[in-house]
Amino acid sequence: MRISINANRCQPSPMRKFHPYAQEAKRQGKKIYHLNIGQPDLPTPQAYYDAIRSFDAPTLEYEASPGMPKLIDAIRRYYQTLDVYLDPRDILITTGGSEALLLTLLSILDPYTEVIIPEPYYPNYTTFVNSAGGFIRALPTNPWEGYRYADRERIESLITPNTRAILITNPGNPTGVVLSQDEMRMIADIAKKHNLFLICDEVYREFCYDDKFGVPTMAKYRDIDENLVIIDSVSKRFSACGARVGCVVTRNQELQQALVKFCQSRLSVATIDQLGAAALYDVDPSFFKESKAEYKLRRDTVVSCLRQIPGVVVEEPMGAFYVMASLPVDDADKFQYWLLENFDVDGETVMFAPGAPFYETPGKGVREVRIAYVLKCEELERAIELLAEGIARYQKEVMKVGSIETK
Amino acid sequence: MRISINANRCQPSPMRKFHPYAQEAKRQGKKIYHLNIGQPDLPTPQAYYDAIRSFDAPTLEYEASPGMPKLIDAIRRYYQTLDVYLDPRDILITTGGSEALLLTLLSILDPYTEVIIPEPYYPNYTTFVNSAGGFIRALPTNPWEGYRYADRERIESLITPNTRAILITNPGNPTGVVLSQDEMRMIADIAKKHNLFLICDEVYREFCYDDKFGVPTMAKYRDIDENLVIIDSVSKRFSACGARVGCVVTRNQELQQALVKFCQSRLSVATIDQLGAAALYDVDPSFFKESKAEYKLRRDTVVSCLRQIPGVVVEEPMGAFYVMASLPVDDADKFQYWLLENFDVDGETVMFAPGAPFYETPGKGVREVRIAYVLKCEELERAIELLAEGIARYQKEVMKVGSIETK
Repeated sequence: MRISINANRCQPSPMRKFHPYAQEAKRQGKKIYHLNIGQPDLPTPQAYYDAIRSFDAPTLEYEASPGMPKLIDAIRRYYQTLDVYLDPRDILITTGGSEALLLTLLSILDPYTEVIIPEPYYPNYTTFVNSAGGFIRALPTNPWEGYRYADRERIESLITPNTRAILITNPGNPTGVVLSQDEMRMIADIAKKHNLFLICDEVYREFCYDDKFGVPTMAKYRDIDENLVIIDSVSKRFSACGARVGCVVTRNQELQQALVKFCQSRLSVATIDQLGAAALYDVDPSFFKESKAEYKLRRDTVVSCLRQIPGVVVEEPMGAFYVMASLPVDDADKFQYWLLENFDVDGETVMFAPGAPFYETPGKGVREVRIAYVLKCEELERAIELLAEGIARYQKEVMKVGSIETK
Repeated sequence: MRISINANRCQPSPMRKFHPYAQEAKRQGKKIYHLNIGQPDLPTPQAYYDAIRSFDAPTLEYEASPGMPKLIDAIRRYYQTLDVYLDPRDILITTGGSEALLLTLLSILDPYTEVIIPEPYYPNYTTFVNSAGGFIRALPTNPWEGYRYADRERIESLITPNTRAILITNPGNPTGVVLSQDEMRMIADIAKKHNLFLICDEVYREFCYDDKFGVPTMAKYRDIDENLVIIDSVSKRFSACGARVGCVVTRNQELQQALVKFCQSRLSVATIDQLGAAALYDVDPSFFKESKAEYKLRRDTVVSCLRQIPGVVVEEPMGAFYVMASLPVDDADKFQYWLLENFDVDGETVMFAPGAPFYETPGKGVREVRIAYVLKCEELERAIELLAEGIARYQKEVMKVGSIETK
């Protein structure tokens, strides 16, 4: 027996590989500030819990394969507030944005075809692309340019006869980059001109910290109806990651038909969670406003604290709840293990996600980290304080920077 | 833009393609007896609802990627009652048995490799195999042999250098075939001898209507630890299809590592449903006994009614809650459309699943249907009465059998 080539091409999650070391550190009594996973700490709206408790059918039956009509309708009404008008058949409910991505890529990629993705990118994209036998063509960016990727020439230079799609995350995970209107239009034009699918992962749509961005969505460009696939989810929008409810939105009916076949094969998405998710869409819009204000405060806190650390390169992220930073260490991965095994201040340490796995290009991101600002401001301050102290000690004890200078 | 080759190889679900016609019939006021989908009507145990209502964390967070430890533990205890002893890492929680199958096939199939599956089989297997770029090698059976497939010579004759796995459903969907101990051992031996994965979909394990079968599982053969993958689910066992909670069980650690990578990429299974599923495993075993007694009564009812219809070929199924029958019609698909569009008795008609899509071999199963006996006995009696009347009228009006004889 042997494992498939595509499975062997996948890597364990970089966000989760430190788990056993974290467990061990906790066993030893250390407190860990978790900046490594995008799990928001804000409460899920009560409407979710009320809805699932109201379920009173005697038998918990399968839902329709394309999704619960009530939820599809709620999502249509939500998109109307963004001036996007969808037909019910344009929306397919999925088990989180994750399944939306996997089914989309299975529907459009053949073995050895390519997807252009700006790097650094969400590492699980690799597994989804690999599952379909495809390959990622990374669009390079740089920390000192704030990871901006919307450069027409650079994007077009990566297009080959094997390219099937461009995949972007807007606002970006891990970079927090938000595209301007002009940039969105330009990327739409590229997809249209080159006859490519444009997959936009917009799960962080509500988290843009400059009012000029509004609540951005590619779905408003009606001339790319055939190209566009929107990946969406309730996870971040409503702080409901554990619901595992997302959707694919596309007006390309041929693609819809392909997606529906995959949806039918897995029967349906969890019934009660769809009921809960439908109720979330009735939550007062002030919920988004308050969430955003809180995350903006957190972003400001984390960026200003990071900027006080000598040698750290960081640009202010415009959206989502991540910031990518370059640290003055030799290897962020090694540094993370060290922080868990050899470091603490008063019994406390910190975790982030090392940067290399966010890159396709070998050797890139080695000194970078992704920090998820999903804790309260005072905890973030303490966490970055620990990071600063960790860097100083690591430079001295492991990199021997201090000792070289004093010799 | 184009749709992937593998997506194009998939077909819409045969169980769901009549949906618009059924909707139209209902709109016209017809009552439909649904024997077409394996959606049990028995109530889901109250323990499920109690557990999900007890969830009181403020934030609905991701669960661990391999599954909720409490649920994994509950499943281990359940397997102990079958004399099967599992390590927690042998179990990965999945979004239904469907995801268990998809992730298993992505982990073991390369493009153009093959899986041997006895036909007729659950049609969604095709989509899962196609998703991984693989192909099904059908192991043929016959209605007049009761669809039994455990023939060593026939199975071994299908093995090629491209064969990666044998996939069986025991008890069988759609046939209700249950393997004897000797047959299970023989198939285990084949997998072992030829170094193949043996994927056993055992989601109907509790539904065997002859005590000699007990609660069968391949997991008790410890000499095939490296070969065996069990697909399992709470859907049928606990009448909880809408929970979408299943699992993969394998002691092959290399395969586990591959599966975990896919599990990590989709983050986790719905948190609250896992909590509900864990509670289900504490339900009193009398629940299984009562469910089984009810389904046995239904099987007896449906088989004895079918046997009274002239020209119907049917063998008594030994397990699951389906029966495959050969009808005296020219084309079961055409007959189903006719039943929805042109037939009723006092405003009532009936739906089943036409047989051809359960076969890989072209031309097979055209006169066969799968009947899911998931209704109460008096409803089943009425449904089969409608089927009998439908066959008689269809023979006369469409096939013109009567008119040929009388001319």
